Amino acid sequence: MTIRIVIAGPRGRMGREAVALVQQTDHFELAAVIDRRYDGQNLAEIDRFSGVNAPIYTDAARCFAEVKPDVLIDLTTPEAGKRHTELALRYGVRPVVGTTGFTPEDIERLTKLAEEKEIGAIIAPNFAVGAVLMMKFARMAAKYFTDVEIIELHHDQKLDAPSGTALKTAQLIAEVRPSKKQGHPNEKETLAGARGAAYDGIPIHSVRLPGFVAHQEVIFGGNGQTLTIRHDSFDRRSFMSGVKLAVETVMHLHTLVYGLEHILE
Amino acid sequence: MTIRIVIAGPRGRMGREAVALVQQTDHFELAAVIDRRYDGQNLAEIDRFSGVNAPIYTDAARCFAEVKPDVLIDLTTPEAGKRHTELALRYGVRPVVGTTGFTPEDIERLTKLAEEKEIGAIIAPNFAVGAVLMMKFARMAAKYFTDVEIIELHHDQKLDAPSGTALKTAQLIAEVRPSKKQGHPNEKETLAGARGAAYDGIPIHSVRLPGFVAHQEVIFGGNGQTLTIRHDSFDRRSFMSGVKLAVETVMHLHTLVYGLEHILE
Amino acid sequence: MTIRIVIAGPRGRMGREAVALVQQTDHFELAAVIDRRYDGQNLAEIDRFSGVNAPIYTDAARCFAEVKPDVLIDLTTPEAGKRHTELALRYGVRPVVGTTGFTPEDIERLTKLAEEKEIGAIIAPNFAVGAVLMMKFARMAAKYFTDVEIIELHHDQKLDAPSGTALKTAQLIAEVRPSKKQGHPNEKETLAGARGAAYDGIPIHSVRLPGFVAHQEVIFGGNGQTLTIRHDSFDRRSFMSGVKLAVETVMHLHTLVYGLEHILE
Amino acid sequence: MTIRIVIAGPRGRMGREAVALVQQTDHFELAAVIDRRYDGQNLAEIDRFSGVNAPIYTDAARCFAEVKPDVLIDLTTPEAGKRHTELALRYGVRPVVGTTGFTPEDIERLTKLAEEKEIGAIIAPNFAVGAVLMMKFARMAAKYFTDVEIIELHHDQKLDAPSGTALKTAQLIAEVRPSKKQGHPNEKETLAGARGAAYDGIPIHSVRLPGFVAHQEVIFGGNGQTLTIRHDSFDRRSFMSGVKLAVETVMHLHTLVYGLEHILE
Repeated sequence: MTIRIVIAGPRGRMGREAVALVQQTDHFELAAVIDRRYDGQNLAEIDRFSGVNAPIYTDAARCFAEVKPDVLIDLTTPEAGKRHTELALRYGVRPVVGTTGFTPEDIERLTKLAEEKEIGAIIAPNFAVGAVLMMKFARMAAKYFTDVEIIELHHDQKLDAPSGTALKTAQLIAEVRPSKKQGHPNEKETLAGARGAAYDGIPIHSVRLPGFVAHQEVIFGGNGQTLTIRHDSFDRRSFMSGVKLAVETVMHLHTLVYGLEHILE
Repeated sequence: MTIRIVIAGPRGRMGREAVALVQQTDHFELAAVIDRRYDGQNLAEIDRFSGVNAPIYTDAARCFAEVKPDVLIDLTTPEAGKRHTELALRYGVRPVVGTTGFTPEDIERLTKLAEEKEIGAIIAPNFAVGAVLMMKFARMAAKYFTDVEIIELHHDQKLDAPSGTALKTAQLIAEVRPSKKQGHPNEKETLAGARGAAYDGIPIHSVRLPGFVAHQEVIFGGNGQTLTIRHDSFDRRSFMSGVKLAVETVMHLHTLVYGLEHILE
Repeated sequence: MTIRIVIAGPRGRMGREAVALVQQTDHFELAAVIDRRYDGQNLAEIDRFSGVNAPIYTDAARCFAEVKPDVLIDLTTPEAGKRHTELALRYGVRPVVGTTGFTPEDIERLTKLAEEKEIGAIIAPNFAVGAVLMMKFARMAAKYFTDVEIIELHHDQKLDAPSGTALKTAQLIAEVRPSKKQGHPNEKETLAGARGAAYDGIPIHSVRLPGFVAHQEVIFGGNGQTLTIRHDSFDRRSFMSGVKLAVETVMHLHTLVYGLEHILE
Repeated sequence: MTIRIVIAGPRGRMGREAVALVQQTDHFELAAVIDRRYDGQNLAEIDRFSGVNAPIYTDAARCFAEVKPDVLIDLTTPEAGKRHTELALRYGVRPVVGTTGFTPEDIERLTKLAEEKEIGAIIAPNFAVGAVLMMKFARMAAKYFTDVEIIELHHDQKLDAPSGTALKTAQLIAEVRPSKKQGHPNEKETLAGARGAAYDGIPIHSVRLPGFVAHQEVIFGGNGQTLTIRHDSFDRRSFMSGVKLAVETVMHLHTLVYGLEHILE
């Protein structure tokens, strides 16, 4: 069965990858795109998309009403993403959304709407399947190892340390183990910061170097052994495997799922 | 509740670690040991065990009858291990067995016996919790990544390549993915062996260098990302966390479990 | 002092990076470019180079005669590269050449020419400073460790295994150590290929997975320790640091240097 | 030629490894040992050394006078090490010393003494050849990469962070590059310590986990590439390759050398 898809935000960096994904996947079909500009034109007329036939709509509601797609892939901004998600559900279109910024109240309201309409919806802050599995495995391993540290390595243009993924990983680990001060009780930093940041007793180390893209390793230590789970993201195509999985999965859901981890077994 | 334990093979390399484990664990008590020699003496009389109070039996049946322990930890040879396991079950003692060499028929017969006696038994070829988790995670990740390779690294005194753990890992992965030839269809080895061994299409690379102990990494590759699961075993104490877990778990079982992976969630 | 540069092959993948490098470097100036097409036009007229002011020549000799640059950066094909290098030297222009395919006779002839003209020239098959340092360090470490293995990891579109860099590394190591069979004398492959390819006794393992770009690690093993040297190339910008270094160095040379390793201390 | 060796401190952990080293090396001969106890006895009489024939002296001067060895290997305490080194030189015995605690004045005085006697002497705070090479390579690479971070990983019984080797590595790097603030100028730690300790602008991250022994990696980052140098020390035998090299080298020296790096090419 072919899944008919509308992409919102086709000209953004993620959007372009999504267009490529749909083009390359046999059972996916690009039914239309939603863009802030170029209403009524065809994507094929825009420079980098020559050959990609898809009508452009600036009005999402009209798009859903006329095109009646199966799935909306939304890779826009938090505000537009929220608006598109709600509209899609109202029109019976299953949303797969990669933007952040949904509040718990948003999620609750949209979940109710999905259930009323009896269709699926997937909202995920992180679509990199490898990163999501890393977090899932880390949470599982934490039951069997009392000690763990996180090292995340990014390019040196990143502003915040630790990364959001590192914090999320630490939080997932903290949920399944008793809080604990690691290291020797009398350990001393002769240079401040050597032992890293601590999230509920879990040390996090942030490396920032030109050359790196986005990498993280979670190291568990026990008597005579260590277990390391590492994810390397080399470019943004890493997100597309998760988008593909979400599009295929959302067809079989009847509720809203928040977080890719809940659709990975 | 204190768990009263008999150790078979206390003077072997693994046995000594098990004695240390029981000594260091508050709710474990060393009730007796089974040894080929020194019948009727006390472990404390043997050089390296001074201070470890435990009667020595050469006759396992008499040991179980007189001592009535909760658990037998057996770290002997395949033959002795098999004999002790059966005897323990007959006497209502829960066996935790780290020797290999059980046939499917042995396992079937012993499972029946455990169920008759309504007690637990755990037989595990590998007690390193980290290694078992690595295999478990690899099997899970294989559902989401079509391509994977295994690199195992051991000291240069190891005779066989690939390692048993690498083969077992490949086998677990092969169970959950369609068989597949990886790499470029036209790839060519200009030096034979460069692309490693293949188990059902999964390349395995065996590194042998002085310095290494026992290490393995499983690398999954997808568009723009890789996911790596690595286990490093630095010394044989790595097995003791699994033995401890097994002793604690076997008290709550009413059947035989083969493989540590089945008691890890 | 500003170095005036001509780039041959500006529209190729490496050429584009070189144009960007020259633009971004304060003491570099793009004097002209040599291209098979667009003679007499300006680079600024070509789509992706808008704003980059540089006259285009299809005739290299005329370019050198009229523009009188300090340095030629050549990132074309083996044949064109050879021809440009010779011409540049004749016109007193220092060549920095990243193409392969020079024979020992070519090198000898061009070296003589550079010395007659008393100017420098640098020809390098690999401009990634990190990769060249990895090989240099591997050669140095090989004097102190008798055992070494090489693991190289590339994307799964690569056709040949092992990679050229892995072979070159093995060759450099083989030059400074006695030939030797590594591993246990009685080791056995239960699956053929597990122990990798062998170059003069040095095992090489080639991993091919989607996601990877170009990576290599050289692992030395000794009693109780290992030393690992790893290079990760994430994109082709990695070559530009070497091109920059070569341009700066070639100004102070009076002979031809083959291989970046000879200008790294 | 056989090198006749006296070992001071044969019963310590390093001393025992040194005894084993001398036993296993064809052209080394254990002429005697210096110990605080057991004067006049033979090492063979002491429990763990059965079969190792070597007279025991408590008086170092008498030992050197009577035994006339070629080399002293001293693996005792800072105070005893200093005393033995001076005595050895006076008696024409070449010292190879693995203790720390020599002041610059001590080194100067002992260097003068070695030159008067026209014999070699080697004092090294770190005899692990791999660790010394890692530091040497890091210093070399620092000329070509402006950005670097150090991650050191040790068992969780270690009291100080960062490790001495990490600090020494940072210091060697700082000597050859301009001081620099790495990372984005506006980067922010949302959890204090995430970006590690800083030595002259070089971030150092200290990981402490059970299972680890002593490991360090130095990561250099540049445009599109990283270069990593990693040393893993799995047990104290890692020091013996350096002791062996020092014993062989000291025979050809006519002065004192401080630091193993100065005898590695």
